[in-house]
Amino acid sequence: MEKMRHSLAHLMSMAIMEKKYPQAGLGVGPSIENGFYQDYDLPESISEKDFEWIEKRMREMISQKIKFVKSEASFEDALKFYTHDPYKTEMIHGLKEKGEKVLSFYDSDWFHNLCAGPHVEDTSEINPDAFKLTHVAGAYWRGDSKNKMLQRIYGVAFATKAELDEYLHLLEEAEKRDHRKIGAEQDLFFFDEKVGKGLVMWLPNGTIIRNEIEKLATDFERAAGYVRVRTPHLGKEELYLTSGHLPYYKDSMYPAMVMDDGTYYLKAMNCPHHHTIFNHNKHSYRDMPLRIAEYGECYRNELSGTLAGLLRVRCMAMNDAHIYCRKDQVKAEFKSVIDLMVKYFKIFGLENYWFRLSKWSPDHLDKYINEPQNWEYSEGIIREVLQEMKVPFVEAEDEAAFYGPKIDVMFKSIIGREETMSTVQLDFAAKQKFGLSYTDETGQDNNEVFVIHRAPLSTHERFTAFLIEHYGGRWPVWLCPTQIVLVPVVDKHIEGAKAIELELFNLGVRVESDCASETLGNRVRKAANRQVPYIIVVGDKELAGEDWMIKVRGQKEQIKMSKTEFLVKIQSEIKDRI
Amino acid sequence: MEKMRHSLAHLMSMAIMEKKYPQAGLGVGPSIENGFYQDYDLPESISEKDFEWIEKRMREMISQKIKFVKSEASFEDALKFYTHDPYKTEMIHGLKEKGEKVLSFYDSDWFHNLCAGPHVEDTSEINPDAFKLTHVAGAYWRGDSKNKMLQRIYGVAFATKAELDEYLHLLEEAEKRDHRKIGAEQDLFFFDEKVGKGLVMWLPNGTIIRNEIEKLATDFERAAGYVRVRTPHLGKEELYLTSGHLPYYKDSMYPAMVMDDGTYYLKAMNCPHHHTIFNHNKHSYRDMPLRIAEYGECYRNELSGTLAGLLRVRCMAMNDAHIYCRKDQVKAEFKSVIDLMVKYFKIFGLENYWFRLSKWSPDHLDKYINEPQNWEYSEGIIREVLQEMKVPFVEAEDEAAFYGPKIDVMFKSIIGREETMSTVQLDFAAKQKFGLSYTDETGQDNNEVFVIHRAPLSTHERFTAFLIEHYGGRWPVWLCPTQIVLVPVVDKHIEGAKAIELELFNLGVRVESDCASETLGNRVRKAANRQVPYIIVVGDKELAGEDWMIKVRGQKEQIKMSKTEFLVKIQSEIKDRI
Repeated sequence: MEKMRHSLAHLMSMAIMEKKYPQAGLGVGPSIENGFYQDYDLPESISEKDFEWIEKRMREMISQKIKFVKSEASFEDALKFYTHDPYKTEMIHGLKEKGEKVLSFYDSDWFHNLCAGPHVEDTSEINPDAFKLTHVAGAYWRGDSKNKMLQRIYGVAFATKAELDEYLHLLEEAEKRDHRKIGAEQDLFFFDEKVGKGLVMWLPNGTIIRNEIEKLATDFERAAGYVRVRTPHLGKEELYLTSGHLPYYKDSMYPAMVMDDGTYYLKAMNCPHHHTIFNHNKHSYRDMPLRIAEYGECYRNELSGTLAGLLRVRCMAMNDAHIYCRKDQVKAEFKSVIDLMVKYFKIFGLENYWFRLSKWSPDHLDKYINEPQNWEYSEGIIREVLQEMKVPFVEAEDEAAFYGPKIDVMFKSIIGREETMSTVQLDFAAKQKFGLSYTDETGQDNNEVFVIHRAPLSTHERFTAFLIEHYGGRWPVWLCPTQIVLVPVVDKHIEGAKAIELELFNLGVRVESDCASETLGNRVRKAANRQVPYIIVVGDKELAGEDWMIKVRGQKEQIKMSKTEFLVKIQSEIKDRI
Repeated sequence: MEKMRHSLAHLMSMAIMEKKYPQAGLGVGPSIENGFYQDYDLPESISEKDFEWIEKRMREMISQKIKFVKSEASFEDALKFYTHDPYKTEMIHGLKEKGEKVLSFYDSDWFHNLCAGPHVEDTSEINPDAFKLTHVAGAYWRGDSKNKMLQRIYGVAFATKAELDEYLHLLEEAEKRDHRKIGAEQDLFFFDEKVGKGLVMWLPNGTIIRNEIEKLATDFERAAGYVRVRTPHLGKEELYLTSGHLPYYKDSMYPAMVMDDGTYYLKAMNCPHHHTIFNHNKHSYRDMPLRIAEYGECYRNELSGTLAGLLRVRCMAMNDAHIYCRKDQVKAEFKSVIDLMVKYFKIFGLENYWFRLSKWSPDHLDKYINEPQNWEYSEGIIREVLQEMKVPFVEAEDEAAFYGPKIDVMFKSIIGREETMSTVQLDFAAKQKFGLSYTDETGQDNNEVFVIHRAPLSTHERFTAFLIEHYGGRWPVWLCPTQIVLVPVVDKHIEGAKAIELELFNLGVRVESDCASETLGNRVRKAANRQVPYIIVVGDKELAGEDWMIKVRGQKEQIKMSKTEFLVKIQSEIKDRI
């Protein structure tokens, strides 16, 4: 595949250079995931309109079974050949400095190109119907904004047309489902230059979703025996020296704030605060496990240039909890966390996931806390849990955290991307660092406190981006910012619609009446475009107590239902999170 | 009163100096609210045990009708008189530097004391049964920790014994109801040195109360047509230059954090963020008012030495909202805010409050935004609102904020302290600063956006301190961290108690079973001491379906009720916030 993709970049250059731009400067042109690109210095702008003649010429060349032949050249000859091309010339000097002895070229027909390869034998290995040029973008030479901006042409390529079509479809879906696009369309959130980069401003609609998801976590955690706390967003230097975040993690933390009583930092993690809460009271073996939960906000000093929508932010709300348990409780607690995750995923209709158990390696003792017995024991019981729960999982050697084994949940997203979302980590190191302990059956102080860090719903920002894409903006009823739109037929029905609105509102439903001076059809269409789950036209019949005709999102036929039936239906859908 | 209190300080000095400590050094000794104090440099420690002989001697002197006579002295004579007393000597030098010409002394019997007065004519004006020495504390000379620590003896004094008794009773109550004491006893919150000063760590019990109060606000604000948002705790320098917090308010803000894209601050107020949200979308006159609510956290860089429990913290959650309205909507919005406040106060059983309308003064135009018409108009309609709502109120000239008139709610707390709690402020300045506008009926951009800042429940920290004191730790059912304790009679009833516990838990009740190996009486007593509203003993009869005997907090007689009746009762008390 890689050979084929890289060879297509050469064919693209041939098509561009053979007649129209023989003096084109050639920057880098590698194969990439799903395709390839090539940077060009051209006397004029290429646009997507040009793709047609370029692709056409590439297909002709493919049909000619052109051979790719490797040859070698001296630095002297190569520099002579590229006198017109400053980019290739710079590359050649670079290779010389790196100590290369000879230069590798590939020849295809008349095209003599400095290139390390590898390539296909000939173009018969390339499917002429399974590639496509996709877009052109500016790219600075060597990625440095002080250099000239070149034109980078991207293409995608697969073995079969079916794969190409599937990929293009996913690309289109990804664009349609882009969380920034839907976030703006649905007024969920925005970023503001004066508030600052990477800091999400949640608009009322986004706040509704935020609060519903936090409530989901709160309800399920309550049922699973967690207690909730609230901790400040700041901590002192001393706390982060204890936890080890300072000095090692300092660059990722927000800058220090020096106050009259010491130096403060915005918190990068919730753990040190939760450990402090655990330590505030004495615990008996009978009180364990203690499960401390908080939708706690954490801060990371990401470079402003790396921030991207909700996917990379500077302040994130962790769906966090820490479980403090005895060694003999680790298995049950892990099981209960995974059970919670599976319940959540079911609610969100997420099916395409598997678990990855990251283990230590006794060969790299420097990377791991030196408690071999705890490693063996805990990896064993986590594996048992995964097996007993019959969930799909893989194991990864030498991938654990310093302080203990962990489970990541991997998702294949609706647009085919693999993502690590949730995590459960076991921690044997916290007990020493924070002096965690409990009074055991013999009345002794016991330091064997195992800590489980868990965030089944990831950070709220990342999870929301994922859900926006997953639902494509068609939120399930319980999450939908507006669940029902009432549309009075004409002005005389407004009062009746408002009365129904109030009745629904008082039942906790998120409902609006659209009384604008527009046609009925327009108002229904507007609500439908907003992906509102239920649209109810309110006219004489509806107000006279006859059955309602309800337009259900995604269904052609309206459903007929009495008001009472509908009130039961909507309330149970909200309650059951449908 | 002041004369009488100050004269008591002289009598106290006479009692102390006449026999036991003739060489005592005398620091300051003023009258204060409810009493007086005097600082002494003594060769040994005074303790509360000494109060008896001091008070006895003071009473004797009072009965002798001792006269207080004013005289004058030269600096030379005064310095000679006080050669033994470095404090009085320093005071005399100080008065000289200030340019005083002669010194004022008061003589009472043999006591010749440098003092500006005024004093009573003679001790017959002092009620010997209406004063009491209360405590002794260390106090540095001139309040400077580099100086010697003196002993400060405090006393309280009133016109009648009844007033004194009332005051002493309130003092005792204040101590019993101290929010720090109850906060620790009930595991509501704590502060931690490593987390940092003035940063509240809310424990599970405190978090329950926190979340219940936030839910109250959320529910009532939803019903009153507010929308909710969530904004980050940070803002950039540019935002606070726009709002005017920088540079004027800089010293109260947390230190700046310099990032790769600019300078950030922890937010001191929520307003700039909410204004930014208002500006994010265009608004038509039909969409107004927009009511944006958030339980938003704000930060103040208080000096560490000034922090005091929940009453003065560095991070506080404001029960905040901003209402953006047209001029013709200001009255209705003010009315609705006051209505909301009155509803809240009723829920919390707060009755002893009145409103204070703070107005501008046309004589101090420098202190106020120059919009005389808006001042006149808005003060007028606010007064109308207060009158129409028939709530008690006073008016205060020249007390408004720079940007508009405001209403403060004053409380007389259960221990007799007057406190300003809630506030509603009108703001004509924000519209210019932030360029707030809406499209009016004529299609024009209209900048006359009036902003109402309101925080009916104050900051969560201050309000919680107030509520702890108000309830004395006896939380109403809906706020109580533990609402019911079940006490199985003997071990065989544990299973049945656990089943009832689960049933109640699933109804949303906060319930515990106390299955400890202790006597029934002990376990009931423990729960009663914790101020749990309902204690239910679970034995054979209860599990057999007979009526329950329920111990109700604060009632001697148990109540008899069927399980079904009780389930209805507890659920409705929680729902109705009783």
